Amino acid sequence: MDETELMCRAIALAERAAGRTSPNPLVGCVLAKGGRIVGEGWHEGPGLPHAEVMALRAAGEAARGATAYVTLEPCDHTGRTGPCSLALIEAGVAEVVYAVADPNPLAAGGAMRLRAAGIPARQGPCEAQARALVRPWLHSLSSPLPYVTAKFAGTLDGRIATRTGESKWITGPAARARAHTLRQRSDAVIVGVGTVLADDPGLDPRPEGVDPAPCLKVVLDTPLRTPPTARLLKTPGAALIACGPEPDPSRRAALEAAGAEILPLPLEAGRPSLPALLKALRARDCLSVMVEGGAGVLGTFFDRGLVDEVWAFIAPVILTGGRPAIDGHGPSSMDDVLRLDAVETEALGPDVLIRGLVPKAQEVACSQAS
Amino acid sequence: MDETELMCRAIALAERAAGRTSPNPLVGCVLAKGGRIVGEGWHEGPGLPHAEVMALRAAGEAARGATAYVTLEPCDHTGRTGPCSLALIEAGVAEVVYAVADPNPLAAGGAMRLRAAGIPARQGPCEAQARALVRPWLHSLSSPLPYVTAKFAGTLDGRIATRTGESKWITGPAARARAHTLRQRSDAVIVGVGTVLADDPGLDPRPEGVDPAPCLKVVLDTPLRTPPTARLLKTPGAALIACGPEPDPSRRAALEAAGAEILPLPLEAGRPSLPALLKALRARDCLSVMVEGGAGVLGTFFDRGLVDEVWAFIAPVILTGGRPAIDGHGPSSMDDVLRLDAVETEALGPDVLIRGLVPKAQEVACSQAS
Repeated sequence: MDETELMCRAIALAERAAGRTSPNPLVGCVLAKGGRIVGEGWHEGPGLPHAEVMALRAAGEAARGATAYVTLEPCDHTGRTGPCSLALIEAGVAEVVYAVADPNPLAAGGAMRLRAAGIPARQGPCEAQARALVRPWLHSLSSPLPYVTAKFAGTLDGRIATRTGESKWITGPAARARAHTLRQRSDAVIVGVGTVLADDPGLDPRPEGVDPAPCLKVVLDTPLRTPPTARLLKTPGAALIACGPEPDPSRRAALEAAGAEILPLPLEAGRPSLPALLKALRARDCLSVMVEGGAGVLGTFFDRGLVDEVWAFIAPVILTGGRPAIDGHGPSSMDDVLRLDAVETEALGPDVLIRGLVPKAQEVACSQAS
Repeated sequence: MDETELMCRAIALAERAAGRTSPNPLVGCVLAKGGRIVGEGWHEGPGLPHAEVMALRAAGEAARGATAYVTLEPCDHTGRTGPCSLALIEAGVAEVVYAVADPNPLAAGGAMRLRAAGIPARQGPCEAQARALVRPWLHSLSSPLPYVTAKFAGTLDGRIATRTGESKWITGPAARARAHTLRQRSDAVIVGVGTVLADDPGLDPRPEGVDPAPCLKVVLDTPLRTPPTARLLKTPGAALIACGPEPDPSRRAALEAAGAEILPLPLEAGRPSLPALLKALRARDCLSVMVEGGAGVLGTFFDRGLVDEVWAFIAPVILTGGRPAIDGHGPSSMDDVLRLDAVETEALGPDVLIRGLVPKAQEVACSQAS
């Protein structure tokens, strides 16, 4: 295997813990000698060993003289576990190649310490792919809010339901399965209570061929209209209902009895404050949040400039009338529209997934326009 | 060159006359011996020689013993020109390979006549591509209406303008250039007068690197609000304004003086009857019509089940508010939505073109729902 293949393998290993590592990043590590793998590891979650340590353990004595391929620059600090830089030095690896440099002020410096110990450490291939892996974590280093991905599935003409509200199904099974991979890697999923009342979604990730990583299921529900019998209160993962500042005590008690946590928040434009909600989620170690709708919730997230990434599933369907996929205020000038960066397109059966990142300057423009 | 390459070449030749051959089909022909081309030709328009005759002329004596690759089964009838089947027999070609069989009851039978003359004639490669080339013409054999392609350029959330009506530009230059290739191959382009008043479009095809094939520019304009100074009255190609049954004489005179033809039509739901307009266009030898908008015009075409093909240019942009790309009534049940067939996706810079065909049964369902 060449260097790129080995780093790709490390990325695939890191992915195995998608949705389970926050507040830590996803990291994978491969130890190889002459292109042959002698040890593999990945970080499985907070409090558990880092990827490098797992790979060193797997390799045993074979680690000596091997090259380590790590998706993220090895850390140099002692948190719940010791610094990986030291572990690599002690194991006698010959070289370290990482895909993404660690900008974390607490943990960075691993490459420098390795070099000081005479071990070459350099940035290698697959940076873009490895960066995508840790985007929510990188975001968390410079923002007090979680990384927010807005997801919707619409028609070519931007509708999500007929005029009578029918919406099953706009997109096909391949697109819906792909959406579950996004839930899988999210720490929390947010919907409005309208979506709960209309569709009664489970909100749990149901990825194909992988153990689901439960996420926090969040409902924006000012007057606590969520029925205590809602499906999302029964599926795996905790449920949080963000409501207005003075929830009705009997509704609250009924929902708490059904297992939900109730989070009263100040109101903004009649809806629980989204920044307050996002801060509360971040305080619960949620680094990545997925907003699934409905249209009004998505519109508010966009208009407030709170979205970092967009996943739009587009079905080759025309509705001509019916409900819009996103229902917000929007800018008045074309100069202020939200134009995504780093756009990628994926065919999913008859449907297309168009993904992209919100440019940082754009976020500001968008927030000013609202 | 192998058989597929030779047929591809014949298709490329046929394309050269895109937008110029109605009511005839686009046809290309390559004569080859042992994989080497000895003659090429394509049909340039009504009254001009057919592709086979052009290729035979180009080949001269070299046609004897050659194989003819034709995008459409050679015709067997005498219209403005003689039957191609006879011309091929007389020239002594050894074999004829065609991509699409001719279902036209007037002209079909060319392959049979060739075989009767001892010349093998068979269907060869590239049928799908060659069928796409003659789709409007094939449609004309079984429908009294032209083949209608609906085109729009919208955001991921299905908007075409901000809430104040700004729309320049949602899509980038590559997408806009691609849209001109569709105008180029259309016999007529239709817009509503709202689009004329908002954008003052030229409506003429401006394809890159090819001589433009002027198309008939059609405005749906019940009360004749089109200004006599509109750009579309100055660009190449004739202009037709479809209005209500009793147009104001002075407006009519002003527009006629500016070069427009005025076509009074019966009204349907406050708009000139679309079936009546389409029949009038067909009577003018328009086999292919492109509907460019605005949203209300597109909505009515779809709701009436008058659309055969869709070209949706999708920009990686979110508007959240603003004007919808298509504004119609739509079906109430998901069972009746218009789901496109034979969907193809093209990346155009940051934008995506999603194209597809309206299934025939679907057309009926859609028309019943309106």
